[in-house]
Amino acid sequence: MMKEAVYHRPGGPFAYPVTPRQLRVRLRAKKGDLDACRVWCADRYAGDKEEGSWTVCQKVASDQLFDYFEGLIPGETRRIKYVFHLRDVSGEEWWLGETGLEKERKEAGVFQYAYIHPTEVFMTPEWAKDGVVYQIFPERFHNGDKSNDPRGAEPWTADARPRHDSFYGGDLQGVIDRLPYLEQLGISAIYFTPIFLSPSHHKYDTADYYQIDPQFGEMSTFKELVREAHRRGIKVILDAVFNHSGDQFFAFQDVLKYGERSRYKDWFHIDSFPVVQEPEPNYETFANQVATMPKLRTEHPEVREYLLQIVRFWMTETGIDGWRLDVANEVDHQFWRDFRKVVKEINPEALIVGEIWHDASAWLEGDQFDSVMNYLFRESVLRFFATGEIDASRFDAELTRARMIYKEQAVQVMWNLLDSHDTERFLTSCDESLEKFRLAVLFQLTYVGTPLIYYGDEVGMTGKTDPDCRRPMIWDEKLQNKQLLAYYRRLISIRRNSKALSRGSYRTWHLDPNTGVYAYVRQYGRETVGVVLNNSNEKRAVRLDVAWFGPEYLVDALR
Amino acid sequence: MMKEAVYHRPGGPFAYPVTPRQLRVRLRAKKGDLDACRVWCADRYAGDKEEGSWTVCQKVASDQLFDYFEGLIPGETRRIKYVFHLRDVSGEEWWLGETGLEKERKEAGVFQYAYIHPTEVFMTPEWAKDGVVYQIFPERFHNGDKSNDPRGAEPWTADARPRHDSFYGGDLQGVIDRLPYLEQLGISAIYFTPIFLSPSHHKYDTADYYQIDPQFGEMSTFKELVREAHRRGIKVILDAVFNHSGDQFFAFQDVLKYGERSRYKDWFHIDSFPVVQEPEPNYETFANQVATMPKLRTEHPEVREYLLQIVRFWMTETGIDGWRLDVANEVDHQFWRDFRKVVKEINPEALIVGEIWHDASAWLEGDQFDSVMNYLFRESVLRFFATGEIDASRFDAELTRARMIYKEQAVQVMWNLLDSHDTERFLTSCDESLEKFRLAVLFQLTYVGTPLIYYGDEVGMTGKTDPDCRRPMIWDEKLQNKQLLAYYRRLISIRRNSKALSRGSYRTWHLDPNTGVYAYVRQYGRETVGVVLNNSNEKRAVRLDVAWFGPEYLVDALR
Repeated sequence: MMKEAVYHRPGGPFAYPVTPRQLRVRLRAKKGDLDACRVWCADRYAGDKEEGSWTVCQKVASDQLFDYFEGLIPGETRRIKYVFHLRDVSGEEWWLGETGLEKERKEAGVFQYAYIHPTEVFMTPEWAKDGVVYQIFPERFHNGDKSNDPRGAEPWTADARPRHDSFYGGDLQGVIDRLPYLEQLGISAIYFTPIFLSPSHHKYDTADYYQIDPQFGEMSTFKELVREAHRRGIKVILDAVFNHSGDQFFAFQDVLKYGERSRYKDWFHIDSFPVVQEPEPNYETFANQVATMPKLRTEHPEVREYLLQIVRFWMTETGIDGWRLDVANEVDHQFWRDFRKVVKEINPEALIVGEIWHDASAWLEGDQFDSVMNYLFRESVLRFFATGEIDASRFDAELTRARMIYKEQAVQVMWNLLDSHDTERFLTSCDESLEKFRLAVLFQLTYVGTPLIYYGDEVGMTGKTDPDCRRPMIWDEKLQNKQLLAYYRRLISIRRNSKALSRGSYRTWHLDPNTGVYAYVRQYGRETVGVVLNNSNEKRAVRLDVAWFGPEYLVDALR
Repeated sequence: MMKEAVYHRPGGPFAYPVTPRQLRVRLRAKKGDLDACRVWCADRYAGDKEEGSWTVCQKVASDQLFDYFEGLIPGETRRIKYVFHLRDVSGEEWWLGETGLEKERKEAGVFQYAYIHPTEVFMTPEWAKDGVVYQIFPERFHNGDKSNDPRGAEPWTADARPRHDSFYGGDLQGVIDRLPYLEQLGISAIYFTPIFLSPSHHKYDTADYYQIDPQFGEMSTFKELVREAHRRGIKVILDAVFNHSGDQFFAFQDVLKYGERSRYKDWFHIDSFPVVQEPEPNYETFANQVATMPKLRTEHPEVREYLLQIVRFWMTETGIDGWRLDVANEVDHQFWRDFRKVVKEINPEALIVGEIWHDASAWLEGDQFDSVMNYLFRESVLRFFATGEIDASRFDAELTRARMIYKEQAVQVMWNLLDSHDTERFLTSCDESLEKFRLAVLFQLTYVGTPLIYYGDEVGMTGKTDPDCRRPMIWDEKLQNKQLLAYYRRLISIRRNSKALSRGSYRTWHLDPNTGVYAYVRQYGRETVGVVLNNSNEKRAVRLDVAWFGPEYLVDALR
């Protein structure tokens, strides 16, 4: 056994409670090294002579270097000590505890999970575990009310090619009008990019957090939207842009006007006074010197309270079901802890999803977000299905790693996206190959976590990165890819009718880096779903072990 | 290079800010594998073409399996992306980023430390970095006021052998009387086990958090003690027993009396009503069924506020300098976050030390404690110097591991103890071998972190575990080991006059598992201290590389 490859720590995704009396533990070892892994546990005050109990750990995943084992250990008293017992393929036995990886149990010591506090058990919303989310960029989804069109709105045509300063007139009435379409598509929640007052088409530069942008409608329109969506079983998630405001935000205007005398000067990160926007801003902004997006000082108690009041207002006033958090990893952790408390006190089933493009484990411990936009997923899917840069072996390994950095509660509701308003459209990344695209969509809709569908993907929309990925939605049925739309409906329906697909475990079933065949199994209770993908241009014959499925008949779900 | 041994994650002790513009990063590799390790970093919004900057990582420690490398990377914009570049001893080169350990830089991706919030930079008190702490168990240190002696107080003699229900009459006036002794010893802070009203001799079953136990004195006595200690440059740390109260605590008495109708019933974890203490408590307690110590529900807002008010009271009323937290790992994290906020708002230089006997990394992220009682240290020191169970190689490896699970800010102020009121006296563990004991003390007083001296160790007191380790202090000079006391004074003085010993880096200099020779070097600025220990009964000759010390003359500090 390769000792250097064995890894565990008594925290993070390696040891975490799933109920107040159950601790999930994970151990990593070199791929193929271990024949068996089990874990002994007892109350942490138990004496040496007490028996404790044994739990077998199952191999749950592998990547190119490692196998991962997991067990669910009981914590009757909520105070746990535990030690792993490993047997390698040569029959040698080892103990892993806090003091080391040893031949003698006594030398290894014990790990401790001192106490499971019920308030510290990571809970993510039940509804989200069965969800399929649809992302709407409101300016570009549907124009339902011509009377609120912005000046200079451009024609809503399939060949429209937006610039950064284009407007088309999409609005909330447009979404209300299209709710039947979304219901028929089968989605369970809508995520809206920002809808509050702002001068831009994307509205990430908020001028007033309390006002629906009049270009999109009025408060009454939005309330009707939420009501109508809920009536159809569709949740509504808004975008919380709290890392920065827009430069028209009243507090920043006050600072621009009164400088050092402004009572809001500490709400931002000002380098010097007077505050100037040109030629370069002398204050911290989103990204590098985006003068229209001054960074908010979320550590400041007044700012925190101001922003949390916005959260309370929209949740209680309109009944929205959660928040997606813009530039979430540049806001301080304590702000998000306070945010979670406010959100979950109003509605324990509200969903909190951060925008984090990289390893987000620091925000997914259970005290901040429920989920993030899973760009790690996108990156792997893109490189396997669209560009062919990675083979099935690496694809599987990357998926494993992106799951193993998180706790199960987060993995179950991770927003798995193919694309967004910030990326190229996936079909474009596929060089418009519908075959590739359909395979990626099939994967997205059968993988563990929440599929996040960017508006228009389902009818075959294309577009390079921003601003081109934000073209107005194609509603002309002659120009929609109806076959693709039917495919999406079919897959969403299959997923939503299958606990195995929405909530089941994930196991790699078969992979072949040479042929591009990749297969996996999802299991929940007695239901098992196998998915076999041929990511190549050739017909492939493959021999699969169907023992997973027991003695039952296999049914082809796509037939 | 063994790929499986390479480890980094963008958080915890592997990536953390030390100032608002500097990030410490750490990488682990198989021992001996790497010839060079460096890290490239840039602003996380920087384009592919931007240059970024390079930092060399130094090998800072090793254990039996791994080498650890560290670098300090600049974060001018506070938003950092980085990737490691490794060269192994065969000359092969690798890149390690979020996506993997790869030959091609592009394939490895980048790690991200999204934003360094100044409020999230872990700050531990400056004074603590130069500190030597003395632990006083007030009932057993000195009896300065006979008028407040408990009934049945036993004679204060060197051959006293305490039982669990013994009292001897130690008090706060006794500590005041002995401050000159402590000043002469050279310590910089006193940690008092609990002094609030309680029926027991140890007072971990608090009856009233607002009252000094009359057996110890009055509020005025304690205030005088703090004043007098401060005048002598000695800080005062109290014991916060917030995991549980005593059963005489008013709220628990109310629950005992009124049961389900008590307004305090949710302050505890009650299984059923009426609440009974016999034959077994039907409520959760400290450890298993300690009826006199009902566990507090620290998640409850009223309990939290009640306890935090106690913190405010003692800090503002008496000016104490910090808290040691009893059973700290069984109290919820959010409580400790709130606790830290309250403490540091009153006094940013107040010290917070948890009682955690195991891996405490979850509490030492920077948002909860500054330090813990370092029982991992004790365990290794015990087994190397006292019992000889481990050799120099394993000793060094265990020390490395116990440092590498924490951030530097915590390691610098870790309370390194040989023993406490909860363990056997170290001299007893040495079978009363003063040679062994002196070697361990020398190590304790020259290691990185804060030496914590248990009262009486310095005069040669012995004792098996509780209650025997709590004998009354030996003040009879004829019975004190005066040579040992002089040795302690000498070492404390050397330490307190050496920045290298108090704040310097720690590097293993030489170790030999066969001869028991273990040597290490501490460095701070231009000062370098080398320590060579011969943990055997034989004379040893050893050849040491003195390149560490540059062209300066070596001075024997113990001469």
